Amino acid sequence: MSEQPMVILLAHGSSDPKWCETFEKLAAPTIAAVPGSVVAYMELAEPSMESIVTNAVEQGCHNFTIMPLFLAVGRHLRKDVPEMISVMEKTHKVKISLAPPIGENPQLGLAIREVVEQTLNSSRP
Amino acid sequence: MSEQPMVILLAHGSSDPKWCETFEKLAAPTIAAVPGSVVAYMELAEPSMESIVTNAVEQGCHNFTIMPLFLAVGRHLRKDVPEMISVMEKTHKVKISLAPPIGENPQLGLAIREVVEQTLNSSRP
Repeated sequence: MSEQPMVILLAHGSSDPKWCETFEKLAAPTIAAVPGSVVAYMELAEPSMESIVTNAVEQGCHNFTIMPLFLAVGRHLRKDVPEMISVMEKTHKVKISLAPPIGENPQLGLAIREVVEQTLNSSRP
Repeated sequence: MSEQPMVILLAHGSSDPKWCETFEKLAAPTIAAVPGSVVAYMELAEPSMESIVTNAVEQGCHNFTIMPLFLAVGRHLRKDVPEMISVMEKTHKVKISLAPPIGENPQLGLAIREVVEQTLNSSRP
């Protein structure tokens, strides 16, 4: 039986705690539904991907899926995150797969439509 | 009768056309559902907010709602975008309201859960 990957919801990170709070709320339904899933930050906030992976490896996990909480691919997802993954794979002898950013899934476009419609309805006199 | 606001879906922008393509796809369901809604970019891509507002004013629109296609509030939404809005309101004598970023709506967290579940199911052997 192959080991189920641990899901890491990767957000950019910021020194502003309100930024991280928003991502924690965004991640909450996934964390409630997917056992062992967690949020990690690319930079400027804790927990980092590195600390999450290090702890999980100590507990016997060797297989990770990173789901970027980003709307689109920019330099971070094209270059920085793959480089960080490559280092962690070598250091910890683990397998880490990087999923496309959430914004590339059509589900997000439907959710945006719903948010816009809610906003317009609530501001209607 | 008060004029319905024109909806501007505001994305960050990038010189990478693939970035803009992702946001155009994200916006497509909203644009199909909300008459007159458009995508605009804060910087590095066209159309800019300023060019969208200028054109709309020429066609008689004076009321805008900006829906940020951002997951959380960072410096851009706290400082840069409100400053741009303030200048446009004075220059064009229009009313522009700035909605919270889409990521602050619980709908997005539910969409993220669905994306993660789809990804896990599709990678299952």
